[in-house]
Amino acid sequence: MLRPLGERVLVKRCEAEEKTESGIIIPTQAAEKPQMAEVVGVGSDVEGVKKGDTVLLKKYGGHEVKFEGKEYIIVDFEDLLAVFDK
Amino acid sequence: MLRPLGERVLVKRCEAEEKTESGIIIPTQAAEKPQMAEVVGVGSDVEGVKKGDTVLLKKYGGHEVKFEGKEYIIVDFEDLLAVFDK
Amino acid sequence: MLRPLGERVLVKRCEAEEKTESGIIIPTQAAEKPQMAEVVGVGSDVEGVKKGDTVLLKKYGGHEVKFEGKEYIIVDFEDLLAVFDK
Amino acid sequence: MLRPLGERVLVKRCEAEEKTESGIIIPTQAAEKPQMAEVVGVGSDVEGVKKGDTVLLKKYGGHEVKFEGKEYIIVDFEDLLAVFDK
Amino acid sequence: MLRPLGERVLVKRCEAEEKTESGIIIPTQAAEKPQMAEVVGVGSDVEGVKKGDTVLLKKYGGHEVKFEGKEYIIVDFEDLLAVFDK
Amino acid sequence: MLRPLGERVLVKRCEAEEKTESGIIIPTQAAEKPQMAEVVGVGSDVEGVKKGDTVLLKKYGGHEVKFEGKEYIIVDFEDLLAVFDK
Amino acid sequence: MLRPLGERVLVKRCEAEEKTESGIIIPTQAAEKPQMAEVVGVGSDVEGVKKGDTVLLKKYGGHEVKFEGKEYIIVDFEDLLAVFDK
Repeated sequence: MLRPLGERVLVKRCEAEEKTESGIIIPTQAAEKPQMAEVVGVGSDVEGVKKGDTVLLKKYGGHEVKFEGKEYIIVDFEDLLAVFDK
Repeated sequence: MLRPLGERVLVKRCEAEEKTESGIIIPTQAAEKPQMAEVVGVGSDVEGVKKGDTVLLKKYGGHEVKFEGKEYIIVDFEDLLAVFDK
Repeated sequence: MLRPLGERVLVKRCEAEEKTESGIIIPTQAAEKPQMAEVVGVGSDVEGVKKGDTVLLKKYGGHEVKFEGKEYIIVDFEDLLAVFDK
Repeated sequence: MLRPLGERVLVKRCEAEEKTESGIIIPTQAAEKPQMAEVVGVGSDVEGVKKGDTVLLKKYGGHEVKFEGKEYIIVDFEDLLAVFDK
Repeated sequence: MLRPLGERVLVKRCEAEEKTESGIIIPTQAAEKPQMAEVVGVGSDVEGVKKGDTVLLKKYGGHEVKFEGKEYIIVDFEDLLAVFDK
Repeated sequence: MLRPLGERVLVKRCEAEEKTESGIIIPTQAAEKPQMAEVVGVGSDVEGVKKGDTVLLKKYGGHEVKFEGKEYIIVDFEDLLAVFDK
Repeated sequence: MLRPLGERVLVKRCEAEEKTESGIIIPTQAAEKPQMAEVVGVGSDVEGVKKGDTVLLKKYGGHEVKFEGKEYIIVDFEDLLAVFDK
């Protein structure tokens, strides 16, 4: 298991045009728009989001990492803009 | 529901030449002027504005996001200049 | 009513060569000089000036806003240099 | 009366080659040298100098302001280097 | 023994395509990807990782040092992105 | 008497090749080397050096001031590198 | 005796290819590598190293000073990367 450190958050980018449980559609292919992602893990200093949350993150920033065949991004909590409340 | 994180605020930009309840008219098409927006949601660390407030925000800054077919902006609280008291 | 947020102050720029109650004349047309303005409203974190005060503000900075037909500037408290005690 | 705000100080620049009570001569016409000035007023957060003190201030910095026909400078306390103890 | 100071961490870079105990494979030869490393020592102000941990660190940053014939990197804790929990 | 403010220190630069009581010789004519100086006065926030101390200061920085015919430098305490213990 | 101020440390650079008591060899002639040095004195705010310690310091930074015929460097504690525990 890959655990982010400090104020970092491990996320998995959602597919473009993905439809969330609450029926939201965010076109992530537009380069200027923030992107949806699913929180996979949070560092010990992170408050306000938890594993399983769907979040909006800034288009740029974060560190891409491949982990057991899947692509993830490690982002600073500051790069998360909002969370989708279910 | 999209909930902004930390000190962020979710706003919906008002139409140009909009007339508020208190009769204010702010021409927002002038590029140098701040813009009016309605507060749709506030992060947990935001004080001084609440959902439903009409605010003035800096012309530039913030992250545009499309949400259930409507356009919003996620801005830092610091980018809000003033609130219209009713 | 337009209420500035946080450490911001809403001011109305005084006319050039204006004469205050205490007889002060500040030529504001000189580009290098600070400008006189009247405080119209203060944010909740502002201390040291109040509505009705005449202040000196830095020549540059602040956000211009038109409000019920009149021109105002929203400035950071830091951009106020001094206040005229009556 | 013009009262500086916060950590600002209102000073009046001394004439070049001025002789203070304690017999000090500071040639202020040399561009690289700090300048002597008399403290005319201090902001509420200023400690260490008071009205009437003669101070040395950095050559550059501060906001020039004309006030009842005389020229003053509003400087940050940080721009004061030293005070002449009588 | 080489002991890092303050918030620094001494790490040994893992070989490319290395396979950890938990079966993770991170291709470190891709220049844009973070790199895996083993923690060899931590400074007195470091919390969250310990000697023997496998960590992900930013591709760039840190100070390379040769020590008893082996190559190490001294990195700031801030340059560590995540730790692999076993 | 010229009294430095806050964290400032008033020093008098020592002559090149000066020999201190403890027999130290610092060639100050080399442009890249720190310079020796004698502390003439310290601001109220200065700890660690006192009047009469011989100190090493960074080659660049500080404000030169002429005072009763002698040349002094007003430096930030941060620009002092070390003190010569007698 | 030359005593560093605040968070500064006085060090003497070790010879290239030096062999420490614990048998470590650090080739310091490589320009990109940190350098070994011996701590000669520490400022009053320094914790974690003491006189006599062998440390690794960043290649660049610090102020060179000649002192009783020997060359020293005054560095910020932040420029020390690690210490060799004996």
